[in-house]
Amino acid sequence: MTRVRAAVLPGAGRAPDVRDFPPPDLEPDSALLHVECSEVCGTDVHLRDGRLAGVPYPIIAGHVSVGRLGAIRGTLRDVHGRRLREGERVTFLDVHRTCHACWYCLVAKASTRCPQRKVYGITYGVEDGLTGGWADAMYLKPGTRCIALGDVPGDSFMAGGCALPTALHAVERADIELGGTVLVLGCGPVGLSAIILARLRGAQGVLCIGAPHLRLQAAEAVGATQRLDFSAHDAGAQRDWVLEHTHGRGADVTIEATGDPAAVAQAMRCTRDAGRVVVVGQYTDRGETSFNPHLDLNQKHLDVRGCWGSDFSHFFGAVEILHDAAWRAVWERIPMRRYGLHDVDQALDDVETGRVVKALVDPASAPTP
Amino acid sequence: MTRVRAAVLPGAGRAPDVRDFPPPDLEPDSALLHVECSEVCGTDVHLRDGRLAGVPYPIIAGHVSVGRLGAIRGTLRDVHGRRLREGERVTFLDVHRTCHACWYCLVAKASTRCPQRKVYGITYGVEDGLTGGWADAMYLKPGTRCIALGDVPGDSFMAGGCALPTALHAVERADIELGGTVLVLGCGPVGLSAIILARLRGAQGVLCIGAPHLRLQAAEAVGATQRLDFSAHDAGAQRDWVLEHTHGRGADVTIEATGDPAAVAQAMRCTRDAGRVVVVGQYTDRGETSFNPHLDLNQKHLDVRGCWGSDFSHFFGAVEILHDAAWRAVWERIPMRRYGLHDVDQALDDVETGRVVKALVDPASAPTP
Amino acid sequence: MTRVRAAVLPGAGRAPDVRDFPPPDLEPDSALLHVECSEVCGTDVHLRDGRLAGVPYPIIAGHVSVGRLGAIRGTLRDVHGRRLREGERVTFLDVHRTCHACWYCLVAKASTRCPQRKVYGITYGVEDGLTGGWADAMYLKPGTRCIALGDVPGDSFMAGGCALPTALHAVERADIELGGTVLVLGCGPVGLSAIILARLRGAQGVLCIGAPHLRLQAAEAVGATQRLDFSAHDAGAQRDWVLEHTHGRGADVTIEATGDPAAVAQAMRCTRDAGRVVVVGQYTDRGETSFNPHLDLNQKHLDVRGCWGSDFSHFFGAVEILHDAAWRAVWERIPMRRYGLHDVDQALDDVETGRVVKALVDPASAPTP
Amino acid sequence: MTRVRAAVLPGAGRAPDVRDFPPPDLEPDSALLHVECSEVCGTDVHLRDGRLAGVPYPIIAGHVSVGRLGAIRGTLRDVHGRRLREGERVTFLDVHRTCHACWYCLVAKASTRCPQRKVYGITYGVEDGLTGGWADAMYLKPGTRCIALGDVPGDSFMAGGCALPTALHAVERADIELGGTVLVLGCGPVGLSAIILARLRGAQGVLCIGAPHLRLQAAEAVGATQRLDFSAHDAGAQRDWVLEHTHGRGADVTIEATGDPAAVAQAMRCTRDAGRVVVVGQYTDRGETSFNPHLDLNQKHLDVRGCWGSDFSHFFGAVEILHDAAWRAVWERIPMRRYGLHDVDQALDDVETGRVVKALVDPASAPTP
Repeated sequence: MTRVRAAVLPGAGRAPDVRDFPPPDLEPDSALLHVECSEVCGTDVHLRDGRLAGVPYPIIAGHVSVGRLGAIRGTLRDVHGRRLREGERVTFLDVHRTCHACWYCLVAKASTRCPQRKVYGITYGVEDGLTGGWADAMYLKPGTRCIALGDVPGDSFMAGGCALPTALHAVERADIELGGTVLVLGCGPVGLSAIILARLRGAQGVLCIGAPHLRLQAAEAVGATQRLDFSAHDAGAQRDWVLEHTHGRGADVTIEATGDPAAVAQAMRCTRDAGRVVVVGQYTDRGETSFNPHLDLNQKHLDVRGCWGSDFSHFFGAVEILHDAAWRAVWERIPMRRYGLHDVDQALDDVETGRVVKALVDPASAPTP
Repeated sequence: MTRVRAAVLPGAGRAPDVRDFPPPDLEPDSALLHVECSEVCGTDVHLRDGRLAGVPYPIIAGHVSVGRLGAIRGTLRDVHGRRLREGERVTFLDVHRTCHACWYCLVAKASTRCPQRKVYGITYGVEDGLTGGWADAMYLKPGTRCIALGDVPGDSFMAGGCALPTALHAVERADIELGGTVLVLGCGPVGLSAIILARLRGAQGVLCIGAPHLRLQAAEAVGATQRLDFSAHDAGAQRDWVLEHTHGRGADVTIEATGDPAAVAQAMRCTRDAGRVVVVGQYTDRGETSFNPHLDLNQKHLDVRGCWGSDFSHFFGAVEILHDAAWRAVWERIPMRRYGLHDVDQALDDVETGRVVKALVDPASAPTP
Repeated sequence: MTRVRAAVLPGAGRAPDVRDFPPPDLEPDSALLHVECSEVCGTDVHLRDGRLAGVPYPIIAGHVSVGRLGAIRGTLRDVHGRRLREGERVTFLDVHRTCHACWYCLVAKASTRCPQRKVYGITYGVEDGLTGGWADAMYLKPGTRCIALGDVPGDSFMAGGCALPTALHAVERADIELGGTVLVLGCGPVGLSAIILARLRGAQGVLCIGAPHLRLQAAEAVGATQRLDFSAHDAGAQRDWVLEHTHGRGADVTIEATGDPAAVAQAMRCTRDAGRVVVVGQYTDRGETSFNPHLDLNQKHLDVRGCWGSDFSHFFGAVEILHDAAWRAVWERIPMRRYGLHDVDQALDDVETGRVVKALVDPASAPTP
Repeated sequence: MTRVRAAVLPGAGRAPDVRDFPPPDLEPDSALLHVECSEVCGTDVHLRDGRLAGVPYPIIAGHVSVGRLGAIRGTLRDVHGRRLREGERVTFLDVHRTCHACWYCLVAKASTRCPQRKVYGITYGVEDGLTGGWADAMYLKPGTRCIALGDVPGDSFMAGGCALPTALHAVERADIELGGTVLVLGCGPVGLSAIILARLRGAQGVLCIGAPHLRLQAAEAVGATQRLDFSAHDAGAQRDWVLEHTHGRGADVTIEATGDPAAVAQAMRCTRDAGRVVVVGQYTDRGETSFNPHLDLNQKHLDVRGCWGSDFSHFFGAVEILHDAAWRAVWERIPMRRYGLHDVDQALDDVETGRVVKALVDPASAPTP
């Protein structure tokens, strides 16, 4: 490999272009990854459009990726202590440099709030090297946590993609009861993985409110027992629909995965007294919303739980789950579309408008003619 | 006892008057309680002023009370199975008729949301008998859960009063760490008991923001390590003050005990990432408030927990705690004032304006001349 | 119905016989249940053989049963508050008279340890009425908690039977991680339901060690990913087998469902450091076992959790789960055999020796010729 | 400092001697610590006597120590990110090199079971440098987690010593209820800190069973509400005594801190149904013990929790607690005795026999004449 092509986001509100880079020099205990596919998710749309603060433009986006290990300098081990070999197919945790030395890491044990952490494809930029997956190859810095995929096909892994560990974290925080009812607000990638995981966790009923039609269809395909089109019903009608399916009480657990601030208050109102709301859809600042602390929270004896990011345990759990062929088959029902490096702007548009459920960047794809 | 005097709230927005009632006929396994003192709390102000829905006026208020058991018909036992005797000094859980048969009781195990529950002095009215503590005597219906006070003086118990089990429930839900920092918003009776209990739970720092001066003094007397006058600092200055005392991070736990909807959002902003907010001050509907789901909740990975009512375990725990003379001595620092049956309107005014920290109705008190 | 036939256990160590009883007089809010089928479980073998203390012989065994409501006097409601009608197919919680008034019920919130509780078919005897399911009909006393089965076939419910809520309680206490590995010791009815529920809870690997062959086959049929014949491998070989399937660490969670005291220490040794052991198989006193507190518990940072009985929430959850046709289909793979009232001694023998996996008493069955 | 004196344990079963070492060469981000005092605990007795496996003799013991930072090469920061200065008084977490890369660290989040961790004064030996506190100075390797003591006197910190974070971890795992009753078995340093922390956590009653008299006196001085001499009562009488103080039920929580395997089964028997037992006293292999899984565990619905080591959060919490002067004063009631470097063998003897409650090595002490 003499040159590495990568799709670069040059700055806030500017379209991506494809550039050539020299292969990286490897530090001790680092590696080159030949990218098989990388993801285009809602965060990437925000990156292109300049809605995230502190992004080190220009950057190569693509935070969750699958590839084959190329040259390894020194030693890479997985968490079982096994040495990874050149040629193995792996993915890796996009979060890097969690410090394990600060108060958040060591005392609060809330490593997703460690101020030192960096994220490949989001807070690492071109200055930091080949640090995003929309490229022929990436540079895996020392300390990057890799997981061998083994029998898991890259496509199956990517059907979950970054949304799966995010949803797994949310479901872990949701304390779903065996036989209980879960409401998922939103049916983008995080919502879809939340639906699947809620079923895997033993929820008997999984209601989904979302849009557009393509994604609602996917929600049903992956296991939602009931679905409602968000765009055709106002907040009151949505709530009535939930109550109708829950003996008039509301869902035991609601997972908010929409991005709309108003959905957080709606989530409280659709949840039964003494239930749980997990807020996992508010990844960018889209302003304030209002609620009634007496009626929506205190009198309901409700738990409302923010859920930020994910750590290695969620990423590892995601791969463990996908090792199960029967479970993997559910994720494989999510429609995906592949784009070449020259088509990432189209991919971003398609994700933004919901024309695709899941978009992948595949550097081997030829550009659309 | 041929006649029983009681202070009656005749209707929403109307002043109390004192009336005479005949002593009750006792059903099997019921008893008469000769009241020693009963409480006047913020909820009673709402009762008088008509701010609670569904109150069965006229009612005798006074939900938490202490007295001596008079005539017992049949058998009353405490939770240890011991038979209570006539003449014993007791208190009793104000919540009655939790059904132990509905979905909330049996499946959700959230008995404070049981729709069958009744509360002495709040949802029982004169129609239901002598069911409030602002009286010479009360009727303890079958199934009322009594606790013998033993060595605990009635005044000490009342220094905690209904606020103590409420605060105990909040502190139980707060998951305070040994050596952590707790912020209490509000220094009315619930806030004061929360301060004491936070210290009893091992919080090293307990910050309190409240008003007026009399209550803030009490907050310091019972163990707040730092205090700030709410009325002299705006929300931004309050938050800065909290950050200054918490290494710039915010409190590990914030307990909201104010009644002001805006305090809930402020509580989120004053709590460190991955911390807990317990909302225990929103007992009446005072409208909506707004917050930013991204900045205040999701990105902070925060837990916000409504806390409604209390059950027998909290009431029992309160009495257990007060059996400890050293701990009891802390509650005894809370200033209290006694009022006769003819003075309850004054007591309500004094509670409403914060002129007293804690007001008791003592039926044996002579009216203020 | 002029006479009710019932299979009666006359005393410790004595064979059952079939007797005739008059139909019961109904107290207010009680009902007659026409039994469709009832269970024969390991506890019933102990009952016949006299290995349980304090059994009020003679008794009609059969604690978990399905039937149709006959005459109802007064009102029976389900937990949703819906009135049950004559002719509905129901099951009911075998535990009756949990007091909701003692320290265990109200303070410890450990209602399965309430000293007042009675169990149909185990601690109620003939003296208490038609209180067991091995009969044409049963008497449902006031306060019995019924659940309508709706679409759930009686056979499907009975494939879970009393083992399903027991296993559900164990799995609830086990804190299984999504994608984790669970080891189930034993493949009797509780073990089989634990295997199914562990998968429903998201365990990626479920190992089972048990015997005999018939039951191990059932373990595989219901979802165990690996199985080992207990009788063909000693304790060391069993442990080696577990380590081999768990990266050398042991299972994340072990559920002991064998009845053999030595299995408890073995469970500790087969679980990974900082994992959980749930002990749910020690329902009768079969003596002591020994373990090494340093190596097996303290150094391993292990949690070992006893799990006694089940409450209404587990029973309710069991029926909720069986409402799902796909999940129900897994329980339907468990082989069952029906016996008439005159054949219950044979049924008990077959359960004891493991010749059947699951035995039902069906009062409509003709005796085996 | 031209030479550093240190008391060295030369091998299993051999008496310590004092040797001279050259001052260490400092790697980047390391420091020299001038020792003010270090601890002699029960583990050190095991070290001398050869009862721990894998000790890299010769070693300088003394795992928890207090001193002043001498030369610093590069930068040392505390968890708040503040740079530590030469001359500051600090302590440090004795555990070093937790890897944050293995399955136990990242997936199980059980870092005390990380196989890479090393412990100053226990698993680091003379080969690794000046890695124990029984010396004029120690070498703080890069990555050592220091905490500035600020106003906390070294003696107060040492009254807790290594036992305090160990006990804090145990109390954290014990889920003590506000107003509950805790039984502590053993009144060595871990037992004493557990007594204090149980009270700080809100236990109303703290029972202690231990010996000898000197330590039982200390137990009472630090807050045990009842105490019993272990040596004067057999297991049955001890259990009767506990039941007598707990309404016949047993303690809500029992913390085992004795080192005797039989105490683990006794702990189960002295705990109420549905309570918790934390096992924190089994740090060396002293063989097996037997218990009855039916009577002692399953039927009791008991939780038995092993508790291994402590992590930075416990060490940090310990210092936070000692910042509170009122709380610190309780630890200051524990009798301590200081020994010079030449007297450590005597110190070990005194610890072993219980002649002292707490023994410190103070390198500035002159040898006993």
